[in-house]
Amino acid sequence: MNISRIEHLGIAVKSLDEAIPRYENILGLKCYNIEEVADQKTRTAFFKVGMTKIELLEPMSEDSAVAKFIEKKGEGIHHLAFSVPDVAASLLEMEAKGVQLIDKKPRPGAENLNIAFLHPKSTGGVLVELCEEQKDAVKTSKY
Amino acid sequence: MNISRIEHLGIAVKSLDEAIPRYENILGLKCYNIEEVADQKTRTAFFKVGMTKIELLEPMSEDSAVAKFIEKKGEGIHHLAFSVPDVAASLLEMEAKGVQLIDKKPRPGAENLNIAFLHPKSTGGVLVELCEEQKDAVKTSKY
Repeated sequence: MNISRIEHLGIAVKSLDEAIPRYENILGLKCYNIEEVADQKTRTAFFKVGMTKIELLEPMSEDSAVAKFIEKKGEGIHHLAFSVPDVAASLLEMEAKGVQLIDKKPRPGAENLNIAFLHPKSTGGVLVELCEEQKDAVKTSKY
Repeated sequence: MNISRIEHLGIAVKSLDEAIPRYENILGLKCYNIEEVADQKTRTAFFKVGMTKIELLEPMSEDSAVAKFIEKKGEGIHHLAFSVPDVAASLLEMEAKGVQLIDKKPRPGAENLNIAFLHPKSTGGVLVELCEEQKDAVKTSKY
């Protein structure tokens, strides 16, 4: 799998309204986007940090995966997202290597990215997300 | 606080001998350094991912903080490290903002970096490490 960088780090929080000021006033980061990801029943807030991002995840429903994570482990780092050129191809490669998949095929995630999750059972307890590189973004950086 | 980037992401593992092949053969990353951090009673392995790094942490003793983390939460993402120009100045700023500190002053960490930890009670459950930017590294990248 050709991982180019960490796309973002997902952090589970009980409340964006409480967490965003903490990241802005204490750490000095700036929130540039808030959006709902209906599919995952979360509201997310994004902060750029160098070439990667922090994504705060607030559960919108008690049965969302993030709500269950907070109930079990408390607020904290939830997942690690890598940027790859082709999520579908990476999923085929992962499956061939015996990795348990949460998503058998790519689906739309936040920030218009195609994404898929690998199961933490196969990755040493780390919930890994694969995010497809945006070709437009690559073009912009070249010209 | 002037955070330039995520310096690394620390991941707690029971055994480097089991975890390193997982990161190399499954994710396709390459381990470039293994070192003992006697101070933290851990053995660490580093992988470069774009402009940041993944640091696997294996406890060398049952009373190390990493061993206690694994006992309580299982293997998984342990801490988030930011790169800052001056750790001592950042600690003063954090203290003035009411953030609880684990380290009152910088101490030597892995890879010859001056580091300090903030308490997760003050940072929404996330164990945050501050790492001092290496001035030599900046010079090297300029010339």
